[in-house]
Amino acid sequence: MSAKSNSHYDTLVKHFQSISHFEHLSALGDWDQATMMPMGGGEARGAAMAELAKHIHSLKTAPMLAQTINDAKELPLTKQQQANLAEMRYQYLQANVVPGELVEAKTKAAYRCEQAWRQQRRDNDWQGFKPNLENLMLLVKEEATIRAEAQNVSPYDALLDKFEPGMTTANLEQIFGNLKSWLPQLIQQVQDKQKSEPNFTIPNASAESQAKLGREIMNILGFDFNHGRLDISSHPFCGGVASDVRLTTRYDEADFTSGLMGIVHETGHAKYEQGLPKTWRGQPAGVARSMALHESQSLFCEMQIGRGSAFLKLIEPHLTSILSSPLTHSQLTNIYTRVKPELIRVDADEVTYPCHILLRFEAEKSLVTGELAVADLPDFWSTQMLSLLGINTDGDYRNGCMQDIHWAVGELGYFPSYTLGAMYAAQFRSAMETELGCVESQIDSGNLSSVMGWLNDNIWSQGSLLSIDELMRQSTGETLNPTHFKKHLETRYLSR
Amino acid sequence: MSAKSNSHYDTLVKHFQSISHFEHLSALGDWDQATMMPMGGGEARGAAMAELAKHIHSLKTAPMLAQTINDAKELPLTKQQQANLAEMRYQYLQANVVPGELVEAKTKAAYRCEQAWRQQRRDNDWQGFKPNLENLMLLVKEEATIRAEAQNVSPYDALLDKFEPGMTTANLEQIFGNLKSWLPQLIQQVQDKQKSEPNFTIPNASAESQAKLGREIMNILGFDFNHGRLDISSHPFCGGVASDVRLTTRYDEADFTSGLMGIVHETGHAKYEQGLPKTWRGQPAGVARSMALHESQSLFCEMQIGRGSAFLKLIEPHLTSILSSPLTHSQLTNIYTRVKPELIRVDADEVTYPCHILLRFEAEKSLVTGELAVADLPDFWSTQMLSLLGINTDGDYRNGCMQDIHWAVGELGYFPSYTLGAMYAAQFRSAMETELGCVESQIDSGNLSSVMGWLNDNIWSQGSLLSIDELMRQSTGETLNPTHFKKHLETRYLSR
Ligand SMILES: [Zn+2]
Ligand SMILES: [Zn+2]
Repeated sequence: MSAKSNSHYDTLVKHFQSISHFEHLSALGDWDQATMMPMGGGEARGAAMAELAKHIHSLKTAPMLAQTINDAKELPLTKQQQANLAEMRYQYLQANVVPGELVEAKTKAAYRCEQAWRQQRRDNDWQGFKPNLENLMLLVKEEATIRAEAQNVSPYDALLDKFEPGMTTANLEQIFGNLKSWLPQLIQQVQDKQKSEPNFTIPNASAESQAKLGREIMNILGFDFNHGRLDISSHPFCGGVASDVRLTTRYDEADFTSGLMGIVHETGHAKYEQGLPKTWRGQPAGVARSMALHESQSLFCEMQIGRGSAFLKLIEPHLTSILSSPLTHSQLTNIYTRVKPELIRVDADEVTYPCHILLRFEAEKSLVTGELAVADLPDFWSTQMLSLLGINTDGDYRNGCMQDIHWAVGELGYFPSYTLGAMYAAQFRSAMETELGCVESQIDSGNLSSVMGWLNDNIWSQGSLLSIDELMRQSTGETLNPTHFKKHLETRYLSR
Repeated sequence: MSAKSNSHYDTLVKHFQSISHFEHLSALGDWDQATMMPMGGGEARGAAMAELAKHIHSLKTAPMLAQTINDAKELPLTKQQQANLAEMRYQYLQANVVPGELVEAKTKAAYRCEQAWRQQRRDNDWQGFKPNLENLMLLVKEEATIRAEAQNVSPYDALLDKFEPGMTTANLEQIFGNLKSWLPQLIQQVQDKQKSEPNFTIPNASAESQAKLGREIMNILGFDFNHGRLDISSHPFCGGVASDVRLTTRYDEADFTSGLMGIVHETGHAKYEQGLPKTWRGQPAGVARSMALHESQSLFCEMQIGRGSAFLKLIEPHLTSILSSPLTHSQLTNIYTRVKPELIRVDADEVTYPCHILLRFEAEKSLVTGELAVADLPDFWSTQMLSLLGINTDGDYRNGCMQDIHWAVGELGYFPSYTLGAMYAAQFRSAMETELGCVESQIDSGNLSSVMGWLNDNIWSQGSLLSIDELMRQSTGETLNPTHFKKHLETRYLSR
């Protein structure tokens, strides 16, 4: 094997670099659409973005790829190059396995379903939503079946794999089964404990001052403003590209609490992006490892750091200066650790949140196997909400099975990532404390650098060079272990 | 000819629609870079934009185009379709005539020259700038020669044609010769007349209040905020796409005057874009006709409307409310009609401005023919500035021949557009007044709708469906006639 014969690999590197340039433009278009674009610009933008998506798809399914990838496998590549090649192969298979007509049919059905859902949700119109969802579900199942056959796994496993490569239904059933065995009781204990906490009013803060505070907090968390921005959108997100991370939040002048924690959360996502390995920029091995790991980083910032007593003390002087009336430290801690079963997932606290995921995991798994019909979804929902969180949702479709956008756009297999992320975050915290000592006391001393350094070395800078299991073992000594999450919740919510 | 055989034309329509989708993304990238992008994002953005430019170029030079365009010429097309096809052919030729290696060499030389120029200009470093410009000029001449051969015109004509299709050196020499015969004397007369005008201080206005005022004035001019935005950049420009026009300005708190008139100017560009024919969106016939006509619309807003007494009266109440101390109407008129020979083109008033263009036209024409060597440019500049505006610029390269970016990026043939635009604008005004009556008195009554309606019907909605001469004849009864410009200057600057 001569250097020259590495040209197969070099061809691939160049090709995937091209793809990443077009994905850069796609990320910019998405961000602009959510933050800057006037309504009237939507139609032309939509057409341009569709053209771009088509072009990216054509690059990902370029006929030369199959052979070139196969040829490159025979080359004397470094371990990292091999990892990159494996990711190329994975992306190629993901893009090629589903026939173009099915992708298009699903995209159209998803668009139709989502557009109608926006109004139907407001109207609590389950009867209107149902046929669209049924139609879309048929296509989702078709896609899942095709992917399953290609990967020799079950259809729902194939959907999970899109977001958390390697994750299986069996594995999740074990993890979530464990969770289900102790979480409802823990929720009850926490609620009993918090019963005596006093009520108080949340003071006002202008949107402008919240944005200023947000930037101060991003600085504390080490967000690099030379490679990113903070803006406003109706739903907070972290977009852009690794060299220019665009995050957003929204400001409620009567309640700063969720906008502020939204920034902390999205900054966690942003730190992962900003910390991705620079030598692998634009290559499949250079992107974030998985959706659950991405969420683990946002939840590390929000849950492990952000809602902890030390961090709240750290930001208190900044916060106090923008509030119409002061909050004590205990009130602030109160706000950010209050546990209360709620109807809406995105408003849930970190203790009850996994219940929302358990329910959705069971539902989508059964929708894909066919054990649950779309028509029976509302009943399933009511029963589960009552059993898990003690809330009656009968007839409240809007705040029940119609609350999330995921299914309305045909995205199944994603929900578990949220709770897996919370578990990964707790596990990272444990491993970090073994190495660095108490995280709270480091934050208390105003120094986040060793905490961030640990995340950078163990997670961000690894990109997709390791498998998830390899990354977990290398950084924490074991694969995913939900015990750490349980310990985290008990420590924060029961022991103080 | 059956409907089916129109498929050649339909293929082209689809192809150019694709190109326009990618150009949409290019416009977004440019705008974002100038307004939103953090510095650190520049490298990756540059790579993505270069990839996009390469892709657009490959679409514009697609091998199938030559034959398909030829075949489509035989089809029974409508007159407008024929115009669209002619524009397709023109774009195809423009993109194909210059060999890829030359385009790349020129792009690189231009990039190098511009990057160095940014610092060299600050340092007044002509000796440093000269070799870069000489090198770049060789490539510009090579490009001009190739274009000239393909179009059977002179090299400088070929450069002019890129910005003002159909314009020739001979034609410009006549137009600018006429201008030169009366302008210096007129400048002298205006200066004599303005000698007695009193001096006063320009009051402060916060950047925030200037932006608010800017939006009010854009509303008065009928800018459609559902299809556009106003932002800040270091150099004002009008970017984006027709359905989402992004204009920018900059604010100087100690001197609102240029930021404000910058908005009026860019709004003129924006109105043209927003008024382009909707049925031809994404097609070559649907874009603005030429650079000079684009400038005619910005200058119509800025010069014909914006600096007129009636408009200044219209915006006075809005303006007064943001100033630290009031300005009288006569002071305001004074500010915006003050004539004074200056070193810098972009700071020039509308009377002396054409002298800056006369000089640059003579210089670039002679640089291309070889009658003027780059080394002799500073001497040429000094002589001309002294003769045209009575200013000595010996040794002041920074404010002399190094002041503009155009030559530093190898853009020759563009400068004449500015003054052609001013002449077109005056000619439109004359024709409009013949049809609608006095423009000043319409603005005085606060009604700009018939003025804007006339521009919409005669210019904006025509896109590139007519040639420039056809458009001028149809809208004003004659081709470009500099007399109207002379009359405009005399009326505004000598008769009051
Ligand atoms: Zn998140
Ligand atoms: Zn302009």
